[in-house]
Amino acid sequence: MADQYARYGDGTRPAEIPAIRWDEPPEGPVLVLLDQTRLPAEEIELVCTDAPALVEAIRNLAVRGAPLLGIAGAYGVALAAARGFDVEEAATSLEGARPTAVNLAVGVGRARAAHRAVLARGGSEEQAAEAALAEARALHREDAEASTRMAAHGLALLDELLPGGGHRVLTHCNTGALVSGGEGTAFAVALAAHRKGRLRRLWVDETRPLLQGARLTAYEAARNEMAYTLLTDNAAGSLFAAGEVDAVLVGADRIAADGSVANKVGTYPLAVLARYHHVPFIVVAPVTTLDPGTPDGASIEVEQRAGHEVTEIVAPQVPMAGVEVGGGIPVAPLGTQAYNPAFDVTPPELVTAIVTEEGVVSPVTAEALAELCDRSRQVTI
Amino acid sequence: MADQYARYGDGTRPAEIPAIRWDEPPEGPVLVLLDQTRLPAEEIELVCTDAPALVEAIRNLAVRGAPLLGIAGAYGVALAAARGFDVEEAATSLEGARPTAVNLAVGVGRARAAHRAVLARGGSEEQAAEAALAEARALHREDAEASTRMAAHGLALLDELLPGGGHRVLTHCNTGALVSGGEGTAFAVALAAHRKGRLRRLWVDETRPLLQGARLTAYEAARNEMAYTLLTDNAAGSLFAAGEVDAVLVGADRIAADGSVANKVGTYPLAVLARYHHVPFIVVAPVTTLDPGTPDGASIEVEQRAGHEVTEIVAPQVPMAGVEVGGGIPVAPLGTQAYNPAFDVTPPELVTAIVTEEGVVSPVTAEALAELCDRSRQVTI
Repeated sequence: MADQYARYGDGTRPAEIPAIRWDEPPEGPVLVLLDQTRLPAEEIELVCTDAPALVEAIRNLAVRGAPLLGIAGAYGVALAAARGFDVEEAATSLEGARPTAVNLAVGVGRARAAHRAVLARGGSEEQAAEAALAEARALHREDAEASTRMAAHGLALLDELLPGGGHRVLTHCNTGALVSGGEGTAFAVALAAHRKGRLRRLWVDETRPLLQGARLTAYEAARNEMAYTLLTDNAAGSLFAAGEVDAVLVGADRIAADGSVANKVGTYPLAVLARYHHVPFIVVAPVTTLDPGTPDGASIEVEQRAGHEVTEIVAPQVPMAGVEVGGGIPVAPLGTQAYNPAFDVTPPELVTAIVTEEGVVSPVTAEALAELCDRSRQVTI
Repeated sequence: MADQYARYGDGTRPAEIPAIRWDEPPEGPVLVLLDQTRLPAEEIELVCTDAPALVEAIRNLAVRGAPLLGIAGAYGVALAAARGFDVEEAATSLEGARPTAVNLAVGVGRARAAHRAVLARGGSEEQAAEAALAEARALHREDAEASTRMAAHGLALLDELLPGGGHRVLTHCNTGALVSGGEGTAFAVALAAHRKGRLRRLWVDETRPLLQGARLTAYEAARNEMAYTLLTDNAAGSLFAAGEVDAVLVGADRIAADGSVANKVGTYPLAVLARYHHVPFIVVAPVTTLDPGTPDGASIEVEQRAGHEVTEIVAPQVPMAGVEVGGGIPVAPLGTQAYNPAFDVTPPELVTAIVTEEGVVSPVTAEALAELCDRSRQVTI
């Protein structure tokens, strides 16, 4: 069960609240999440004491973003182990909470493997739980380090592609500290450019239907005092046409072996616009996002979400109507059917480069990605 | 001043309420508008007794849509004349209420010219007012007829381009009976296909920021019992990629002499997607939308609207917060700057065809458009 833990709604600017943290109060270990559905209106932490609470938080998008889902999944396994629940059952339900982000399954898998390994060599349940937690902490730390390295690689690439500096970068969805153990993926690159004085403007797509750009990326950009401007997703075309976009930076939820990129719905139209306007389209994602087990874009399962996310408006300060389907404010006639894929798939030929912590792949080919995966395995094992 | 006139909020399905009508109650002539900002939640009519009320209704988008704005502008001049206000002053303020839709200026110009002509030949103010009203009524009638003819031309074109039938049509914004004296422009074509049993699916872009697709097109599609599905604007890319779109049908607010089309923001990205996927991109608009005085796309003035339309959610049933900038519910951090162009411009090379009441122009060239304008002038004068 998840409880509200802390509330920072008094208008003061609190110290940075981590998106995820492990805590061990006297009542027993807990996983504490910053509830991202309430941002930017309120900063509220959710406390998970078991895996079902975490599954619910993942499905509700209280915790979201590919790298962070991996970390959350690993901690979820550790939590089930530490609290004496059935670890295999918890792992299975966590893995299935959202189907598209490969990192979630990877994170769950790592903590479960650590847990299993201890039991297999005759260790106690307690030792196995400790191993699972140690693995989750390691993943958390690795992800923070990966952020730093992705930011450095990404900034070097931007400077190479756009030697003039003064980058005007368009981004979609949210890819900053809220999705990561560190400063994120695509957003971390923009932030690195900002810190070097080389970011002229961050164009922030609002990212319908759940407005992660308006709510979360704008929040992170404001906190970092970046020059940013919000736009409706469909206004990006005008910016491209006016020559106001130098590069597109996005994250990824899964990258297939052929380089097809599954990311938040709305990414693919940006890739087509970028190609039409000869603007670099750059994907920034940790190596864990690469999925050699998925051969191509057509093999990626895309999560279809409930239509009421489109037919109703749900925002942090919108009062819940209560009696309606999704509890939001209806903006379409009752009974309207909606098409609501959470992700879309961008083919490799539209991707200028994939930036990872292990280096940059450009042009994006199956061979180059396989080589990167091999290199990464040599480094991390 | 505009007053609320009638209310149909009791859940019963009233007879079709016209988007605009002239009425002459004992208190004097009035122009009655269906308040489109309240749809689909409530069907409320606004009563305008003078031009400033109409200007406000135009700016607030209570009345909107290129052809309907032309009709409203003409009636606005007639109203000022009938009520004894300064007609020239009223015409100037009406013309400037929204800069991009050329039909508004055309409608105002026609009623004003009729008014001036009577005065110039020594007629009375009363006769001049009658002439202005007759001209507004004529424009209203012509627009209804133009709808019917656009629908027929558009359906013939669809059947020619897609001989298999079972059209799956994507549309953006709202272009039905709510924008017209008749059944509209692009929507009228889809409706004609529906009536002939040849519309398999109408894909309805929600059309951020003001959600005209979700609120108005879905409302019109539901009333006409069409098979329709709503989507966020950024999900259109997935539909194209999946081969689910056979044609795009949109309206226009102004078409320059070279065939550049100004229409609701989000139209241009659809045109780029349609080109990338080899899908016909069809613009449906009356001849009054063609503006020989604007040479090209770069010469079209694009209205920039207030940022709070993006940073706040305003929907018919969202309670007004009152104290905030735009009175809506904020979804972005306070102080967030937004880029909010109302329109974008699609170059002629991305437009498969322009369908007018006088016929179809394809391919879209300056010469073909000039010829159409000449022909239309011969017909109407």
